Amino acid sequence: MEDIVKTDGSVTAAKGFKAAGVAAGIKYTDRRDMAMIFSEAPATVAGMFTSNVVKAAPVKYDMEIVKSSPYVQAVIANSGIANAATSAQGMEVCRKTAEHAAKVLGIPENAVLIGSTGVIGEQIPMDKVTAGIDELAKQLSDTRQAAADAEAAIMTTDTVPKEIAVTFTIGGKTVTIGGMSKGSGMIHPNMCTMLAYICTDCNISKEMLDLAARTDIPDTFNMISVDGDTSTNDTYLILANGLAGNPRIESRGEDFDTFMKALHIVDEYLARNMAKDGEGATALFEVKVVGADNKDDAKKLARSVVSSSLCKAAVYGHDSNFGRFLCAMGYSGADFDPEKVSLDYESRAGSIRVFENGSKKAYSEEEAGRILSEDEVTVMIDMHSGNAAATAWGCDLSYDYVKINADYRS
Amino acid sequence: MEDIVKTDGSVTAAKGFKAAGVAAGIKYTDRRDMAMIFSEAPATVAGMFTSNVVKAAPVKYDMEIVKSSPYVQAVIANSGIANAATSAQGMEVCRKTAEHAAKVLGIPENAVLIGSTGVIGEQIPMDKVTAGIDELAKQLSDTRQAAADAEAAIMTTDTVPKEIAVTFTIGGKTVTIGGMSKGSGMIHPNMCTMLAYICTDCNISKEMLDLAARTDIPDTFNMISVDGDTSTNDTYLILANGLAGNPRIESRGEDFDTFMKALHIVDEYLARNMAKDGEGATALFEVKVVGADNKDDAKKLARSVVSSSLCKAAVYGHDSNFGRFLCAMGYSGADFDPEKVSLDYESRAGSIRVFENGSKKAYSEEEAGRILSEDEVTVMIDMHSGNAAATAWGCDLSYDYVKINADYRS
Repeated sequence: MEDIVKTDGSVTAAKGFKAAGVAAGIKYTDRRDMAMIFSEAPATVAGMFTSNVVKAAPVKYDMEIVKSSPYVQAVIANSGIANAATSAQGMEVCRKTAEHAAKVLGIPENAVLIGSTGVIGEQIPMDKVTAGIDELAKQLSDTRQAAADAEAAIMTTDTVPKEIAVTFTIGGKTVTIGGMSKGSGMIHPNMCTMLAYICTDCNISKEMLDLAARTDIPDTFNMISVDGDTSTNDTYLILANGLAGNPRIESRGEDFDTFMKALHIVDEYLARNMAKDGEGATALFEVKVVGADNKDDAKKLARSVVSSSLCKAAVYGHDSNFGRFLCAMGYSGADFDPEKVSLDYESRAGSIRVFENGSKKAYSEEEAGRILSEDEVTVMIDMHSGNAAATAWGCDLSYDYVKINADYRS
Repeated sequence: MEDIVKTDGSVTAAKGFKAAGVAAGIKYTDRRDMAMIFSEAPATVAGMFTSNVVKAAPVKYDMEIVKSSPYVQAVIANSGIANAATSAQGMEVCRKTAEHAAKVLGIPENAVLIGSTGVIGEQIPMDKVTAGIDELAKQLSDTRQAAADAEAAIMTTDTVPKEIAVTFTIGGKTVTIGGMSKGSGMIHPNMCTMLAYICTDCNISKEMLDLAARTDIPDTFNMISVDGDTSTNDTYLILANGLAGNPRIESRGEDFDTFMKALHIVDEYLARNMAKDGEGATALFEVKVVGADNKDDAKKLARSVVSSSLCKAAVYGHDSNFGRFLCAMGYSGADFDPEKVSLDYESRAGSIRVFENGSKKAYSEEEAGRILSEDEVTVMIDMHSGNAAATAWGCDLSYDYVKINADYRS
């Protein structure tokens, strides 16, 4: 019951899920840019979406579907154009996409979800989407490769795919959760230019699936930041088709706890790896806060440090400029006594304390630089005040971030 | 009464103010790093300081002096070490600095203010400060050059000095306000790694001087952002020694209004030029919001756009990626209807509308690129909803910002 096994799988790992990814010509290049996920059985669904006031058309569309549809069976996503700031025409593209996909897949129109990421303000060419859906439907498969194609098709400036699957047991039945995501830029709590699709064969009610997502996302996807920009398109969807055959989870209890543990592994893995693959990143920048007065303060502190351009630039430069971490804590909105705080750097190369009792420690700059030179770096902050903790993930700020974003569209 | 004349002056422009700047060896280089401002007559003082919880020792020290001293006569500032996160020893450095300056200048110890900017976490070598004060006192002068030396001595990564003076008439007397500031990095509302010193010979009560500062700063210094990092050391001080001989301003009225107008010119000029000279900046990035429902929303919108890394990178790339402006508006915290918003770019090269009625306008990308290529670029946002307006100033995000901050200390 306790064993959760992590595998290299993705959205096709759970029973009954198929996927495909094709090049539909929406991107300027000939890279894959349209993905489809299909569940053979009707799936309950939960979703979380961007908090941005300017919501892309597919976000508004999906919010309505997640709210009103009893089940769904397909997700159609593209990575060329965000379909944001596109007014009524953008909504019409979503409706037509769902209509065509429903016809081709033989499912109800309200069982189709839509996702988009890419340039804001441009309209999606409907003819390319229609042809793309036809091709995707033909290629649908439950293989690992099909899932990899789908992941490739939602990536933008991502340099590596983010995919994971876990298996575990509920009521004697093997249950699988598989997921994929794309991130890279416009990544900031809450949510990101992030598309995350989680597919599970767990038998779970819509209410409990929703509770699971709402409970886990605040500690995972909402704790990452690449650049402080909360996107118009952030979408997290989890589909559960019940094919594992476990006793239906309809309330809190042991089975729900097991599901939550497994889901947390999937969500944290995808979130952490989106942070590590942030635009231009050379390192994962992890900030752990412990000993805070309350969870809210711990989160504010961790997120403030991980989002600071100056802290990120210091990590890029492998420079132990620890005052910047203190400074970012100071404007986080959390109240605290700076004299009580201790700061440590940690990585595979070791750990070192640089600040305590209100003053700099006499530490070796060379050793600190060596610890900060790894590709995963943790700043450990102990507030020495209470028992609350939080972790945030981000990345360093490099020349390449600027290069990528000064000239993204061309 | 209405005429306010702008000149090239600085902190020595007003009657009775002297200044000096020397190389005291606090910086690693042989650049000037200690400045002194001295008023021959006791001056009333008002100040505003960083909102960061981690306040540098000189900030805590000055807050107490501004609150409790009836008048002041000197400011001693250094630009090598921030004296932040330095605990009790840091406060002791402030006390000793004031004690020595008071002795050398023959003024009370509580008439001395302290300012610091530079690396956080290091202790200031007291022997160098003492020798520096001795040299500064010798060089004190009311010349334009002396003011320029003082400005040079508070600059860090600034590439150009920020100095201004204005003269105007109150009650038949010529009144002058002169000011200087340094900015460059860790610049974000509220306040910045900013030291701003304003010297006026206006005869004005402490209460009205304080009111003037508190009224003007929210629309000037608190509307600039370079990198989203609110510093530990932000300090704005205004000294008024009364030597202009005008009827004392002790309440609201025409004289106070005239003083406010002149002060606003000084504050806005210094703030705007700090933004333009932000670390690595190639352009001033101005965001004007009009037609908002209320002032608070207008400020949130302008500040969110001017602070966005993606918007800043787009300006650096001269890339009309207008969706990023909409996106940053969307997560500003202000509520609005995106369908009503219009966006224009403006610069010396012309102006162009790129978005209205919820959709992209059919505009020339080439012309937009030309407008965005100037060294002062304005994004004009009309909410078409109410009558409130606000302006924020920032700069673009360049490779050099990263370069400067990845390796600031060495």
